[in-house]
Amino acid sequence: MLRIGMSAALALGLATVAFAADDIKLSEEEMKKATQIYFDRCAGCHGMLRKGALGPNLLPKKTRAMGTETLEYIIYNGTPGGMPDWGASGELTKAETELMAKFIQLPPVAPPEKSIADMKRSWKVLVPPEDRPTKPETKRNWRNYFGVVLRDVGKVAIVDGDTKELVSIVPSGFATHILRTSKSGRYMYAIGRDGKASVIDLWMEKPQNVAEIRVCNDARSIDTSKAQGYEDEYAVVGCYWPPSIVTLKGDTLEPIQVVSTASYTYDTGEFTREARVASIVANHHKPEWVINVKETGQVWLYNYADPRNPKIHMLMAERYLHDGGWDLSKRYFLVAANARNKVVAVDTLKGKVEAIIPTGGTKPHPGRGANVKHPKYGPIWCTGHIGSNDIVCIGTDPKHHKKYAWKVVKNIKLPGDGGGNLFIKTHPKSRYIIADRPVNPDRDLQTQLYVIDKKKLEVVKTIKVPEKYVKPRKVEVNGKTVEVKPRGPVHIEFNKKGDEFWVSIWGNKLVPSAILVYDAKTLKLKNAIEGDWVRTPTGKFNVYNTMYDIY
Amino acid sequence: MLRIGMSAALALGLATVAFAADDIKLSEEEMKKATQIYFDRCAGCHGMLRKGALGPNLLPKKTRAMGTETLEYIIYNGTPGGMPDWGASGELTKAETELMAKFIQLPPVAPPEKSIADMKRSWKVLVPPEDRPTKPETKRNWRNYFGVVLRDVGKVAIVDGDTKELVSIVPSGFATHILRTSKSGRYMYAIGRDGKASVIDLWMEKPQNVAEIRVCNDARSIDTSKAQGYEDEYAVVGCYWPPSIVTLKGDTLEPIQVVSTASYTYDTGEFTREARVASIVANHHKPEWVINVKETGQVWLYNYADPRNPKIHMLMAERYLHDGGWDLSKRYFLVAANARNKVVAVDTLKGKVEAIIPTGGTKPHPGRGANVKHPKYGPIWCTGHIGSNDIVCIGTDPKHHKKYAWKVVKNIKLPGDGGGNLFIKTHPKSRYIIADRPVNPDRDLQTQLYVIDKKKLEVVKTIKVPEKYVKPRKVEVNGKTVEVKPRGPVHIEFNKKGDEFWVSIWGNKLVPSAILVYDAKTLKLKNAIEGDWVRTPTGKFNVYNTMYDIY
Repeated sequence: MLRIGMSAALALGLATVAFAADDIKLSEEEMKKATQIYFDRCAGCHGMLRKGALGPNLLPKKTRAMGTETLEYIIYNGTPGGMPDWGASGELTKAETELMAKFIQLPPVAPPEKSIADMKRSWKVLVPPEDRPTKPETKRNWRNYFGVVLRDVGKVAIVDGDTKELVSIVPSGFATHILRTSKSGRYMYAIGRDGKASVIDLWMEKPQNVAEIRVCNDARSIDTSKAQGYEDEYAVVGCYWPPSIVTLKGDTLEPIQVVSTASYTYDTGEFTREARVASIVANHHKPEWVINVKETGQVWLYNYADPRNPKIHMLMAERYLHDGGWDLSKRYFLVAANARNKVVAVDTLKGKVEAIIPTGGTKPHPGRGANVKHPKYGPIWCTGHIGSNDIVCIGTDPKHHKKYAWKVVKNIKLPGDGGGNLFIKTHPKSRYIIADRPVNPDRDLQTQLYVIDKKKLEVVKTIKVPEKYVKPRKVEVNGKTVEVKPRGPVHIEFNKKGDEFWVSIWGNKLVPSAILVYDAKTLKLKNAIEGDWVRTPTGKFNVYNTMYDIY
Repeated sequence: MLRIGMSAALALGLATVAFAADDIKLSEEEMKKATQIYFDRCAGCHGMLRKGALGPNLLPKKTRAMGTETLEYIIYNGTPGGMPDWGASGELTKAETELMAKFIQLPPVAPPEKSIADMKRSWKVLVPPEDRPTKPETKRNWRNYFGVVLRDVGKVAIVDGDTKELVSIVPSGFATHILRTSKSGRYMYAIGRDGKASVIDLWMEKPQNVAEIRVCNDARSIDTSKAQGYEDEYAVVGCYWPPSIVTLKGDTLEPIQVVSTASYTYDTGEFTREARVASIVANHHKPEWVINVKETGQVWLYNYADPRNPKIHMLMAERYLHDGGWDLSKRYFLVAANARNKVVAVDTLKGKVEAIIPTGGTKPHPGRGANVKHPKYGPIWCTGHIGSNDIVCIGTDPKHHKKYAWKVVKNIKLPGDGGGNLFIKTHPKSRYIIADRPVNPDRDLQTQLYVIDKKKLEVVKTIKVPEKYVKPRKVEVNGKTVEVKPRGPVHIEFNKKGDEFWVSIWGNKLVPSAILVYDAKTLKLKNAIEGDWVRTPTGKFNVYNTMYDIY
């Protein structure tokens, strides 16, 4: 007989728990540790309820047939299909990989719910609005600040884009996923993987967090109210668990409303408790957030004009929705459906799915994508792929370039085999789109940038990152020597003027890394932002470009 | 150690189950039986997940402290607070009450989910649209038909309102809860407690079911698309479990879309898996359904213009939302929040909660309520109460009678102590509102009707139902003699012309009962519709009055 406890206990709010499945027995302490590791390392791809998403399902029926040894081998060494080598990379100890191999054979542990009262217990207004500056205190060109996520150390750095000086470092949630600004640019919002939202006041001489709140247990997205009449009014967090949309007051982060995204898959009509909010992007033309719900394949146009009484237009789209960005007109939102290798184009003016476009590549991963005003195709929007070397561009102008609208007009192959691209980025002033490739297994392909000419739509150059920034280094951890090896450049962001772009070197938190600044015209390395504080830099968000969604 | 199984197994889709909690052990067969009884008898008040609603929660923490003996006593004998005497009334055997006393000490069993594919397996188009009449086949005045719910025998009777003849009897879902018509009146829809929807074609010489589908495991409401341009297009079912809104094609009942109502309570922001759809009513002015979600206290204005991509305006209202009806203008929808003794007035033109009105009574239960055009107060809407003898009327005309709008303008006390009213009903042509009182414990009060003068807003008469219809009778069941006693008259409906009203005698399915027809002016008994088929008649729905929401 299978004795199951914690899943039911947590799901139903009972107190008595037991952790045993035939031969597998874990102590309460082991369960606690494994649950935390699962949440940190595994839930992103395999789902909080282990039903699978980007990674396969890990339900007992399957995992028990595989057994502890096989599972441990996979967890330790990874797979060619994309499973990271948690043991070999030193992220988990041998004992931890064994613990996880056992843990995933037990019934899934449903994580707890979170009420508004729970949220409020974590809510802190660190600097009340009345004590904040009434105009910018700094003489710096703060609209050209870059917010830099220092992911594994749980911090956000504010760097002056003009002088490249560090202006401030503020704490943020665990493994901050993204930064967004308010419409005015004054406030910069961070969201941690742990569901902790925080807001930084960039008008301060030395910007600092002015409010914070933990609204859920796992989150990936945050944005703000950007429509006329609602500037700087609200923030919104998209949660993975509990799957929900949480509206906050923009200046204090006071929670206003929470709406569950748990519903039915758009195609098979199956109930999905774990219907995670993959991304949220604010509409500039009306008081609406575009909310992409991963598992159900639904895009929700969420009208926040009366935030306590929201209006939600549920659009049936594709699975699994991930990330996306605006076309040049900011009427169409293009979002990846990564399980189906498609891009969904949403017409936010008419409130409908305009087109669903097969990309021809594997696992599209646009970030926000890159927009180009092309002489032949007109306005186009481009995305890269994690699983293949395709950068594809899609026509986005049905009015004046109907022939090309909602079709892949160009597939720009990255040189060399395999995918591994995470982000592409451009700026209206730049001739180029820049692409990274940090998760390609080939060391050479991984450590260079790819320069695409916006007219030719071809890779015209690769930029090798100077070896000194990516070479392996030895560090001592708990008396043992560990070799750490940066993955290479990741995530590109242009400055306000569009004459330079910044890339992060994806390192290990044990050693400082760097942010490299390139001239957007000559493509020469201009600066390297270094210092002991530069640890695990990942996403970088230029204030001005984020205010106006320039990409 | 508590071994729990079925709850987790069902919640998580696992196969292995076990039914034991320390000393309490139930076999798989006993579990199955208890689960069915719980669903049939208990879930309505105590909730499918046993978290409580109208009845208290029945979670193990509480029930185990009470113990099997106490629980069995309560289940058998009932309580003065409203718990029925399931054993004493003969509804459950001694063994069954003991089984239930044990069952509710085990962790709650989460019922299964239902996908569109699951629904489709039960879907039957019995008469395809192309084989149905193209115009009414009958010579009868079919718009004056009454659909009569024969609740405990799972049937619907179609009775000719002109001749009082039985036209047809068709099978329906278990314990049919309500009937509604399409906009044209041609189709009559039934929804069973078991989530089975069926549609009857009234144009047929002998009306019969033309399609059926089981869309959920527990449901209470059904309605149709009544806005211009959408007449007879869609039907919609509001489910208790899984808590959801299911849109169907009006003529074939093919499922089109399902949306979960699980979300957060409007006030405390707590996630509520069991957020049941208490009632749904169609807007006549625009393609919108008013959907009242019980536990979360939210009214959803559900726009079905593009039924695959619905727009939902979520209005924060009050708890627990139950049933309600339109004001005279059909702009305002008034719905009971029975846990708070309030009525919520929703302005469906502006899409907002207009007012929340304390009724002064206990547990308002309007059904659809009764509208009066009063010489002093203007248009008012009235509701009765289950828990007290108050019939209260609320002003509904803020434009021309602002002073009285959204206030209780009159409390009409029913004579005698206690509540027990379930329905009140009127017709624009009638001088009177008629009220029933079938769940008042006093036999005299239970077996009469209450006549309220619409001008005076006073009870001007009580009508004693002839003794022969409510007197106890002895019947033989499985060789044993059982005494059955009709509760008295329940649910009033006027005919199309408004010159007579019909009431059901709430009997036991073991013996035939009657439907009494009264003259609406003289208040004299005109007819008694009797026959072997008249078993457990409850709700009656005149086609014309239901088409136009006349009450």
